[in-house]
Amino acid sequence: MAKRFQHVAIVGKHQARGIRPVLEEIAQFVASQGLEVSLERDTALNTGITAYDALDNAELGQRCDLAIVVGGDGTMLGFAREMARHGTPLVGINQGRLGFITDISIEHFREALSPILAGDYDAEQRAMLEGEVWRDNAIIFEGVALNDVVVSRGATASMVELRVDVGDEFVANMRADGVIVASPTGSTAYSLSAGGPILHPSIAGWVLVPIASHTLSNRPIVLPDLGEVSLEIVAGRDASVNFDMQSLASLLHGDRITVRRSAHKVSFLHPKGWSYYATLRRKLRWYEGVS
Amino acid sequence: MAKRFQHVAIVGKHQARGIRPVLEEIAQFVASQGLEVSLERDTALNTGITAYDALDNAELGQRCDLAIVVGGDGTMLGFAREMARHGTPLVGINQGRLGFITDISIEHFREALSPILAGDYDAEQRAMLEGEVWRDNAIIFEGVALNDVVVSRGATASMVELRVDVGDEFVANMRADGVIVASPTGSTAYSLSAGGPILHPSIAGWVLVPIASHTLSNRPIVLPDLGEVSLEIVAGRDASVNFDMQSLASLLHGDRITVRRSAHKVSFLHPKGWSYYATLRRKLRWYEGVS
Amino acid sequence: MAKRFQHVAIVGKHQARGIRPVLEEIAQFVASQGLEVSLERDTALNTGITAYDALDNAELGQRCDLAIVVGGDGTMLGFAREMARHGTPLVGINQGRLGFITDISIEHFREALSPILAGDYDAEQRAMLEGEVWRDNAIIFEGVALNDVVVSRGATASMVELRVDVGDEFVANMRADGVIVASPTGSTAYSLSAGGPILHPSIAGWVLVPIASHTLSNRPIVLPDLGEVSLEIVAGRDASVNFDMQSLASLLHGDRITVRRSAHKVSFLHPKGWSYYATLRRKLRWYEGVS
Amino acid sequence: MAKRFQHVAIVGKHQARGIRPVLEEIAQFVASQGLEVSLERDTALNTGITAYDALDNAELGQRCDLAIVVGGDGTMLGFAREMARHGTPLVGINQGRLGFITDISIEHFREALSPILAGDYDAEQRAMLEGEVWRDNAIIFEGVALNDVVVSRGATASMVELRVDVGDEFVANMRADGVIVASPTGSTAYSLSAGGPILHPSIAGWVLVPIASHTLSNRPIVLPDLGEVSLEIVAGRDASVNFDMQSLASLLHGDRITVRRSAHKVSFLHPKGWSYYATLRRKLRWYEGVS
Repeated sequence: MAKRFQHVAIVGKHQARGIRPVLEEIAQFVASQGLEVSLERDTALNTGITAYDALDNAELGQRCDLAIVVGGDGTMLGFAREMARHGTPLVGINQGRLGFITDISIEHFREALSPILAGDYDAEQRAMLEGEVWRDNAIIFEGVALNDVVVSRGATASMVELRVDVGDEFVANMRADGVIVASPTGSTAYSLSAGGPILHPSIAGWVLVPIASHTLSNRPIVLPDLGEVSLEIVAGRDASVNFDMQSLASLLHGDRITVRRSAHKVSFLHPKGWSYYATLRRKLRWYEGVS
Repeated sequence: MAKRFQHVAIVGKHQARGIRPVLEEIAQFVASQGLEVSLERDTALNTGITAYDALDNAELGQRCDLAIVVGGDGTMLGFAREMARHGTPLVGINQGRLGFITDISIEHFREALSPILAGDYDAEQRAMLEGEVWRDNAIIFEGVALNDVVVSRGATASMVELRVDVGDEFVANMRADGVIVASPTGSTAYSLSAGGPILHPSIAGWVLVPIASHTLSNRPIVLPDLGEVSLEIVAGRDASVNFDMQSLASLLHGDRITVRRSAHKVSFLHPKGWSYYATLRRKLRWYEGVS
Repeated sequence: MAKRFQHVAIVGKHQARGIRPVLEEIAQFVASQGLEVSLERDTALNTGITAYDALDNAELGQRCDLAIVVGGDGTMLGFAREMARHGTPLVGINQGRLGFITDISIEHFREALSPILAGDYDAEQRAMLEGEVWRDNAIIFEGVALNDVVVSRGATASMVELRVDVGDEFVANMRADGVIVASPTGSTAYSLSAGGPILHPSIAGWVLVPIASHTLSNRPIVLPDLGEVSLEIVAGRDASVNFDMQSLASLLHGDRITVRRSAHKVSFLHPKGWSYYATLRRKLRWYEGVS
Repeated sequence: MAKRFQHVAIVGKHQARGIRPVLEEIAQFVASQGLEVSLERDTALNTGITAYDALDNAELGQRCDLAIVVGGDGTMLGFAREMARHGTPLVGINQGRLGFITDISIEHFREALSPILAGDYDAEQRAMLEGEVWRDNAIIFEGVALNDVVVSRGATASMVELRVDVGDEFVANMRADGVIVASPTGSTAYSLSAGGPILHPSIAGWVLVPIASHTLSNRPIVLPDLGEVSLEIVAGRDASVNFDMQSLASLLHGDRITVRRSAHKVSFLHPKGWSYYATLRRKLRWYEGVS
């Protein structure tokens, strides 16, 4: 059994109505287990909870040895990116709708959290993508993504054409609504909608999948996570790129997006016995069906 | 630069008409470079070439430090499985139709082989699957596959239903014409036809893909190559299993096929500058298309 | 409102255990509404019900103006093909598992049947395929299909290659596990598993879809139901053809399967307000999902 | 053989460089066959060709009994929509890149046009979509489309959710990047990229296909072209709709797009022996491939 935690950060989706009592309940429970509790600064400001220290992300990353995130996968993704450099592990509590990585239901948070706080949990590491946008030999944008890097056509263009290279090898020219480079975590998000496969979180690779490809002979490919993926804008007005939700619009021909594995990983904790495959079946209704 | 080779095995698709002069040309060329040449026994018998030692697979594996296979991917796959336990690297020469792993055209074999024989080449390792079929706690079949393990419905059944587990985790029940567990090498073969993604050869994973799934919410998944994949026959008369081309028919309910990574790998050599992605584009016309 | 029915045929999936009391209940209910009741001969023999006339299919087709089929879609398809030449409309009652065309649940059969027997229903017509197999200018097989005509590779062959023509126009050469020509009714059966689209029952067309195509640039096509579709065996040992469940194996190179619209249609009756789209959603969980 | 034509309209993609000599050649050739020639007004203005009458679309539609369009499919689609109300048949000449409906190569225009002008051709009719956008019981936009009606998510939204009805039947709620209603003509355009089937031009139906559906259990459906398709914006900021290239942005929740078959059809003429399937194979490389 791993070590018992000592100082827990609590983060809430602050826009959500009625989040205050939920966060208070969780904080009280964690404190009642003998752990120190701090609130993420915006969470404290937005809910008006003043009973605990309010810390910014850097402070949380340095002082806390566990973070509890209350909300959906989107909230978790955003905060997990921030914690990655600190190595702080995260636990996710959803408020009713099961998430891939916010897999503890608020109804049962006590039973689920209690052993985790005591050091009894399943842990898993998730790789992140990082990269930048190059224009005329200069970096004009940098980003980090836990889900995916997406290059999309402009709203008034019929497609974007990208030249894709991996390391110094040419891969293909792709003409499509867009092209997604997704991590295993992102393989169940936008990439899946676009026709990509599911990658188990332990796969050391990215999936490269076009959105509405103009070429019939397209197929998704799973690339090794070593080396750099380069996506150069060859044609298409006003394309944009997203690293998770951070975006840069108005890309020009010749702009080049480079993507590689980040040195940091995100660490998620789950109750003992958690199953990735069960989450797929419950969340996506994967293979749940009919004859 | 790697070491110069010394003793080369030559293997030919012996059913092919007109293979004799081709093999003689290659053997003479290899000998002219100062290397010892042996022929695979069936190749020698079928072509009637007697100028070189004829050895069986075990002898070839022990004595030769390189094997040249002349024919298509099927010929290569069969022989490569045999050499895997010996670690003998292989080079493939096709007779006109580009293969994924028989990528040297017979027209240019001298230019391509010459530097390889001298130790100047790109090498890559390919993982293999191995496994067995269990019935009533006994093993009734064992197999090794470089491409894939395929469980298929019987000819008169409308489907086969499989319970899939990875290690001790339940994955899903799949109802389909069949289910494929493909290695990266096999990801461009039957798995691709069934809708699976392409896996770069360096990906440490298998793709699990159904053939004509009865469930709309099916999607291929890439599984880690650690741990064991288990496929249990839950329903469907007269299902069969194939490890590459070796097959066992008349499976019964409760029969269980287990699959894991083989301890052996296959080693393929290519001319310097060989590109996996170029082969995808040329062989599959992947992303080669149209407006 | 259409005319009231007078003489009802009742057909049951005779292999099903416990079908006897179910059929007796239905027969008594229909008789209690003042209609004459006959049993399909095999249904009578297998259940031992002797209270009603037992008629063969030809007699049923001539004398009855409505048929009630109890069982699954498979039972219905088989019997509906038999009734098509007589124009007898059919109603389907399932025993628990919703069918596409057996959409009345046994639990509520009285409420559902009562208005239908009185002439108050929604009716729809379904097109059928008919065709034959030609060898050396002679017909060696004839068949009729409500779902689909499927040409499949032999169990030991890696694929079948078919040359497809429509009328005197060449369509394509297809290399695959098989090729399906499906009616709108069949578009939600095997064709859907193979990647075909759903065709609303009123569409005057067939969908032509390969199973596990060897060509990446394959796509399903919806063909007009005018003119004849021809599928010629170009390569592949021991292929077979199925018209619904009637099959011919051991096809030879040069054998040609021709398919066209049958002069007969099947007529299905549903309770008023029946919705095809609701059946898709409930039966296939089509678009019922997630996140 | 159909009647000989008398008065030909010529239309050119006026932005294209070097189009003037091409149009002059074609015009002279048509005139040399004894037919009257007029130019579309913008074509005349942009090229500076003054040797022929310049007419606007309404005049062309009334006076000409044939239109020759020089350019790509986009140019043809735009002009064909204009001619539909007049019933003027169209012939398409491409400048090097084969189009689906601009199938005569400029290199061979004389051999191809000569018999057509004399009344010897294959004709086909293409259905069009027409519809409007409703807000608060008022029509705020009207459009006509030969290819498709596309509802798309706003650039900053993660999806659009649409409630789809056909006539008074609910079809499904769809959450996706967008939803396409495509005519048979449009089935080889954006709809095909999004995963839709090909519809032969004679099919009396539309294909309804989502772009990057959030639901795994989505499948394209072919709907009858009778009755009205309604797409209501249920969720998603700033969605937009396109009827071919005419678009309306900033749709609001509750806005409803209705689509039905236009009373007008477009009539395309092709050289005798033209094959739709051959165009699929050549233009899309459909089923052209590999093993």
